[in-house]
Amino acid sequence: MEKEKEKERRESRFVIPASEVEEQSLSSLVSSFESLARTPISNFRVAAVGLGASGRVFVGVNVEFPGLPFHHTIHAEQFLLANMFLHAETALRSFAVSAAPCGHCRQFLQELRCAPDVRILITSDPEPTFTPLSHFLARHFGPHHLLPHTEPLLLEPRHNALALALNPNPNPNPSSLALEALEAANRSHAPYSACPSGVAVLDSKGGVFKGSYIESAAYNPSLGPVQAALVGFICGGGGDYSEIVEAVLVEKDDALIKQDHSARLLLHSLSPHCLFHTFLATSTQ
Amino acid sequence: MEKEKEKERRESRFVIPASEVEEQSLSSLVSSFESLARTPISNFRVAAVGLGASGRVFVGVNVEFPGLPFHHTIHAEQFLLANMFLHAETALRSFAVSAAPCGHCRQFLQELRCAPDVRILITSDPEPTFTPLSHFLARHFGPHHLLPHTEPLLLEPRHNALALALNPNPNPNPSSLALEALEAANRSHAPYSACPSGVAVLDSKGGVFKGSYIESAAYNPSLGPVQAALVGFICGGGGDYSEIVEAVLVEKDDALIKQDHSARLLLHSLSPHCLFHTFLATSTQ
Ligand SMILES: [Zn+2]
Ligand SMILES: [Zn+2]
Repeated sequence: MEKEKEKERRESRFVIPASEVEEQSLSSLVSSFESLARTPISNFRVAAVGLGASGRVFVGVNVEFPGLPFHHTIHAEQFLLANMFLHAETALRSFAVSAAPCGHCRQFLQELRCAPDVRILITSDPEPTFTPLSHFLARHFGPHHLLPHTEPLLLEPRHNALALALNPNPNPNPSSLALEALEAANRSHAPYSACPSGVAVLDSKGGVFKGSYIESAAYNPSLGPVQAALVGFICGGGGDYSEIVEAVLVEKDDALIKQDHSARLLLHSLSPHCLFHTFLATSTQ
Repeated sequence: MEKEKEKERRESRFVIPASEVEEQSLSSLVSSFESLARTPISNFRVAAVGLGASGRVFVGVNVEFPGLPFHHTIHAEQFLLANMFLHAETALRSFAVSAAPCGHCRQFLQELRCAPDVRILITSDPEPTFTPLSHFLARHFGPHHLLPHTEPLLLEPRHNALALALNPNPNPNPSSLALEALEAANRSHAPYSACPSGVAVLDSKGGVFKGSYIESAAYNPSLGPVQAALVGFICGGGGDYSEIVEAVLVEKDDALIKQDHSARLLLHSLSPHCLFHTFLATSTQ
């Protein structure tokens, strides 16, 4: 019971129900969430607090992984969007953040249809004020340079029509965890490579957390499926990563972009005894 | 002889001697270099042509790697800076580029001391004109937020005072390739993690190409040491990656940021039979 309460307490920290917060209050919340950042390398704690179209407020923090290259790092703004994605929020209106967003995050935010109009406030500014993203990334490169206008963008509902492939070797029988990972892969935003993927992790208390790969038009800022699942784990009240006992990745069998090795590397670095399976999927379209 | 000439011809494509080109001519060169891009995924070819403080002109192109996550991708602007780094150019004045630089590259460029003043021209613009980087990344986050003013920035000479560690297991005897990789590690720009690293690769014709890890204040946009060595390989006239027969990574024994597994993954993906060794180094300071 104590543990359940603790989990709920932690979970409720990352999503605040609608109508409790207005845009003008976002900035006052930022500092209280900075302690949730996991920054064993930089100790540079960043929180981003964003207002969704539904009126709900979402939190993102930065997460660093010692022992691995820096490209595994999750920035607070990416965490924020992955958290909104998990909770089926369809648009980001504005957010307040501890420090000026880096170029990598400004690029990642371009995946939103309303990107130029997202209003950003930096709490460490002498006179914090909401300023549109278009000011932070003038002359931006983004989805509209590469995709047809009808393609769903980030946070917009999509279904990738993947089904698990019938290849028992190396795949064991699909578990419920694999079906969760398949669902995450089917929601994945990967219009540039057409290689969606998803990860589901199981913790030692039986909790299941999943995450969908989120691609960037500029390639490198893409958020990997393990990172997305870790956002789910942290938002869901997860503590130490060694609580993760099993993980499943679902990706396409003929994928041009393969997450398998990098996903395994990150998970085994965080939870060395974690079981890791990759299930291949085929497009049913 | 034919092969040597072909190699020289290819090498000369990536560096143009001083006094042959002025800033106003950079834009006219861009399209002729786009064919050097290696873009098996996107077929979106980008070239960046930059003028250094010495008057020399350097070329960068984008390079993509099928079968791996997108974070391995080298953008044209990163290639340009890694090329300048290899040739000990100390500052970038301006560059012309095929398309608007993405946010990830605008962030990577912040590692230059003169970043806000770097002048950028986008050749696909209706009326191309040189515009300072400060316009493309307003309210930037960069090295000055994290480092003392006296710390050398990207392209400024530095020596990391690493020496190979005396641990024969798993290290074999240091080869000349290891000493080349050590030199690359000693030049590496890694002030945020204090974990410099370098890679040297040997091709089937006996050519040695090296590259230094280049870190970004924003972590994720950092350029890995294998990527940097591949810039050397391509600039040096290298053709198919399967020509790479051996590679050595040098990194610190107590590194908080370890390149080992990711470096091995990328190299074995490009050249499956390539020998790969990691030599550990210790700081002598
Ligand atoms: Zn960022
Ligand atoms: Zn770029």
